[in-house]
Amino acid sequence: MKRTAFFISDGTGITSETLGHSLLAQFEDVEFTQITLPFIDSIEKANEVVGQINISANEDNSKPIIFDTIVNHDIRNVIAQSKGFLVDIFGTFIKPLEQELQQPSSYTVGKSHSISEDTGYKHRIDAVNYALDNDDGARTRNYIDADIILIGVSRCGKTPTCLYLALQFGIRAANYPLTEEDIEDFSLPKVLKEHKRKLFGLTIDSERLAAIRTERKPDSRYATHRQCEQEVEAVESIFRQSGIPYIDTTHFSVEEISTRILVEAGLERRLQ
Amino acid sequence: MKRTAFFISDGTGITSETLGHSLLAQFEDVEFTQITLPFIDSIEKANEVVGQINISANEDNSKPIIFDTIVNHDIRNVIAQSKGFLVDIFGTFIKPLEQELQQPSSYTVGKSHSISEDTGYKHRIDAVNYALDNDDGARTRNYIDADIILIGVSRCGKTPTCLYLALQFGIRAANYPLTEEDIEDFSLPKVLKEHKRKLFGLTIDSERLAAIRTERKPDSRYATHRQCEQEVEAVESIFRQSGIPYIDTTHFSVEEISTRILVEAGLERRLQ
Repeated sequence: MKRTAFFISDGTGITSETLGHSLLAQFEDVEFTQITLPFIDSIEKANEVVGQINISANEDNSKPIIFDTIVNHDIRNVIAQSKGFLVDIFGTFIKPLEQELQQPSSYTVGKSHSISEDTGYKHRIDAVNYALDNDDGARTRNYIDADIILIGVSRCGKTPTCLYLALQFGIRAANYPLTEEDIEDFSLPKVLKEHKRKLFGLTIDSERLAAIRTERKPDSRYATHRQCEQEVEAVESIFRQSGIPYIDTTHFSVEEISTRILVEAGLERRLQ
Repeated sequence: MKRTAFFISDGTGITSETLGHSLLAQFEDVEFTQITLPFIDSIEKANEVVGQINISANEDNSKPIIFDTIVNHDIRNVIAQSKGFLVDIFGTFIKPLEQELQQPSSYTVGKSHSISEDTGYKHRIDAVNYALDNDDGARTRNYIDADIILIGVSRCGKTPTCLYLALQFGIRAANYPLTEEDIEDFSLPKVLKEHKRKLFGLTIDSERLAAIRTERKPDSRYATHRQCEQEVEAVESIFRQSGIPYIDTTHFSVEEISTRILVEAGLERRLQ
């Protein structure tokens, strides 16, 4: 079964898209073509969108599902005239919230206001710079400023996780790859021992690791199943012996890994 | 006016948090203390959450606002017994969607299913690696593989934007800083001219730039207002003369900048 879904916003579309994805994921037997249309902030653009929705409706012979977070009444009313099935995200929840908070909302007034980044900007940029400067064991002298130091074998997901922690939460995350030499004697490198309470381990299924490494360096010893298995076993053993908390990244997205680390390490976000 | 808001989920909490932030931002006169509680996936954890909500309710002398996306009925019922004001995100929209799609949802069945990352994972990791390898003009020989090449003065927001484009959309984004030498003759460096259709400019208010640079290198010529103004003027002039699309990042978040680039450059996401 196939349907089309539109995520429409006068801003980035991140809210309508995030909620839309989550809701549509509850319908496993439907295959959705998903289209995000951000910055729909004029009647003219809204009319174009209606055209696009109606073409989809005719082609699919069913109503496209519309998730919309447009604030302006007039623009929203244009979208509402389309042949789509409207999931009115703001319209549904704002009224009860206004009653509970006993306040009128900007939405009801029709006044869009941009969310200022000023307080968050610096934390975020500092965290991104920190992650880049302290990626892949490049430097270890800045570990004193780290909120967390991710450790694990090469290609287990450390770098994307550090970057996500930085961008999403403003967390200063360094990462250090445990290489063959590091793990030869089944103990932590000295430079890490000094920062033990900041360490957090990542591990991964060795078959998955071999597949990822093969992608990067085909036919290398580094990518063999035997090598991956040995490294993963050694690293997990170090984590357990040293009492370092760790998670298996194999079946998790970068978002899930990052959020789990935040919870399990008890980290406080610098960005809300 | 102060209130507390909880974003509660059996997963990462990203959906309830994203929607909650957007809705609460419509109430500018209320100051919200915002608490995200991810991975609430057992009755035991739910009972702890209820305790936390009720303490807030007593302290604030008003109902905390609860945004919840828990799939399991029994866990959700526990949360519903708290002294909070519940915004039932899934409960509200799933029923009408089930009717429209004529399908039962996993939510109604109470079966949580994790969203598989398999198709997206490779695109995402490749894009992050690409952004890191081609950051800050480090290499230019890989521009043939770029989806987009961001250009602009030092510290105008290129690197975080490239990383966000990679993590969020799987876009391969390189960036090249236009230095004093590059812009001396008010024309594009040769290495960029070859890839002109991939270029996208970032610019920034010169006072904001001076503030950001001062943070990084206080009392340097690089951070003076005069220097920043000259660079920004020269770069904008190059953008206009060469017909390169560009946006001013001064008042935008990384999300907004990235989403605008996606739209204006007509880029297709590799991740949905």
